[in-house]
Amino acid sequence: MKAIGFKTSHNIEHEESLVEFETQKPKASGFDIVVKVNAVSMNPVDTKVRASVAKDIVLDEPKVLGYDGIGIVDEVGENVTTVKVGDRVFYAGDVTKNGSNSQYQLIDSRIVALAPESISDEEAVVLPLTSLTAWEALFDRMNVKTDKKKILLIIGGAGGVGSIATQIAKQTTDLIVIATASREETVNWCKQMGADYVVNHRDLVNSVKQVGFNEVDYIFNVSDTKMHWDSMVELIKPQGKIAAIVDIPEGIDMSNLSKLKSKSVTFSWEFMFTRSMFTTDDIEEQHEILSEIATLVEEGKLKSTLTKIFEGFNVQNFKEAHKLTESGKNIGKIAIKY
Amino acid sequence: MKAIGFKTSHNIEHEESLVEFETQKPKASGFDIVVKVNAVSMNPVDTKVRASVAKDIVLDEPKVLGYDGIGIVDEVGENVTTVKVGDRVFYAGDVTKNGSNSQYQLIDSRIVALAPESISDEEAVVLPLTSLTAWEALFDRMNVKTDKKKILLIIGGAGGVGSIATQIAKQTTDLIVIATASREETVNWCKQMGADYVVNHRDLVNSVKQVGFNEVDYIFNVSDTKMHWDSMVELIKPQGKIAAIVDIPEGIDMSNLSKLKSKSVTFSWEFMFTRSMFTTDDIEEQHEILSEIATLVEEGKLKSTLTKIFEGFNVQNFKEAHKLTESGKNIGKIAIKY
Repeated sequence: MKAIGFKTSHNIEHEESLVEFETQKPKASGFDIVVKVNAVSMNPVDTKVRASVAKDIVLDEPKVLGYDGIGIVDEVGENVTTVKVGDRVFYAGDVTKNGSNSQYQLIDSRIVALAPESISDEEAVVLPLTSLTAWEALFDRMNVKTDKKKILLIIGGAGGVGSIATQIAKQTTDLIVIATASREETVNWCKQMGADYVVNHRDLVNSVKQVGFNEVDYIFNVSDTKMHWDSMVELIKPQGKIAAIVDIPEGIDMSNLSKLKSKSVTFSWEFMFTRSMFTTDDIEEQHEILSEIATLVEEGKLKSTLTKIFEGFNVQNFKEAHKLTESGKNIGKIAIKY
Repeated sequence: MKAIGFKTSHNIEHEESLVEFETQKPKASGFDIVVKVNAVSMNPVDTKVRASVAKDIVLDEPKVLGYDGIGIVDEVGENVTTVKVGDRVFYAGDVTKNGSNSQYQLIDSRIVALAPESISDEEAVVLPLTSLTAWEALFDRMNVKTDKKKILLIIGGAGGVGSIATQIAKQTTDLIVIATASREETVNWCKQMGADYVVNHRDLVNSVKQVGFNEVDYIFNVSDTKMHWDSMVELIKPQGKIAAIVDIPEGIDMSNLSKLKSKSVTFSWEFMFTRSMFTTDDIEEQHEILSEIATLVEEGKLKSTLTKIFEGFNVQNFKEAHKLTESGKNIGKIAIKY
């Protein structure tokens, strides 16, 4: 079968930044299934993993990227209960394994679900990774109660995670959502996603105050954690909760975190790959969440965040998709149809 | 009325470290009540506030310490609904106001509850501050589910908060509790409180492994946050939650917190005075929690953590109680009976 991957971290313009190669079709056993992939979507994690190999290192085998995927179940292992051969499934994958940028993919059945029937492969495939991230941050990390009229600030409202987090919050909870965006087109997009207020993340504290809120109950920061740290410390309400997804490798002033002590604030990391990376006892929760997302799509409550499609399984399309993702300017999400 | 307080931060041996003085009996209005205080208990926060005034500063009026209190309601403000004149109430107070080290005290009725009738003033008065801290950390911050067989590590098991946290966890949840202690008498005390395992907090990671656990789901650190940080980072399970109560004013290596990202770990500060300090919308939750604590005592599920009583409202007794608390060697809790 064909796959696309990389052996060395290169700038995307480099000829070998992504290469096509032939490899063995995988065999399913245990909880794993083999999926014949029909489409994938791009996430920032694809470009981050592509850039993550140390300089001058050349991998023995190309690393296959791709986390979101949709396709038809081709084979199932002996322990599989969630799906059967022929099912159309979608999933966000496992960062420790080879990804969906290949014709067939091996994946744990406990992190896949039946894809929503009412939308196309390209529309559906942009949902899993961002929906799982948003759902886990809201409900598993911050423990948001669905029936409370609390304020949620989403920093980075127009990206993939921010877009679906806004929809999930508005469609499944009584939260008031303030999303951040700075350009006219991203502001409009956030409103389409259902945000009650859209504010500029430059001068964030004052922007939030200008729409009438001195404090917020929850902050989901899908943008730069460090850049917005001081604003988050100031804006979070006593007993409030903050979740973030962007790492701070160089450290941060912890006295700020200590300042949060008088407010009894909770800070959570959300990393969508935790459950699959550690095969946690509750790994099948990702199957449950994706099934719920599919139901919400069928009910017309969640809309796909797809904004761009590349047609065809070839290196050129993947390179273009990586380039667009790295620009940071993309609104919503990109799919590649095989 | 008589009160005991301080105008300057002194070593406890200093003649004026605590002084008795005459002051006006307070008047109740709004949500406030006046309580005729019968007994108080000591907490580390008493000694910390006593030491908190900047050098060479002399306050105009003595600051009255004392957070835990028990007594009879003497007067109620016009908005009070939780209690009435003549009720015997207990509470953990408000760090921003004058405390319980006085004959009468003004306190917000939304943070008091009827004291358990089956135990004495001295036995009851040691419970509020530590119980509220433990309850809020477990259920409001870490959102512990009562019906799950998860592992809770309590660092500092023999102190006031650790002792009642162990009891609350064992009596109201299905948690397995590992408490830390290092001396024979503190180890025995932790077992009396109901801990399933008692381990030494020196070489914490290996001590926990020796009793059969490589990881724990929850850590409630009531001891030194900074000292145990690296052990907590290592021991916490993927998706685990950590709560701490001891501030880290000098900062801490945040790359550790970033390491926690791959495990999607949640870190919460618990500060029992947050609700009263900020008069949060849910301030009356402290009335509810204390009422539940009283019920658990009446049902014989929670035992008082009282280990020492000083009899009499006088400066000498308060100085002895501060000295004993500052030693850090005290097991359980100290009460002063007026």
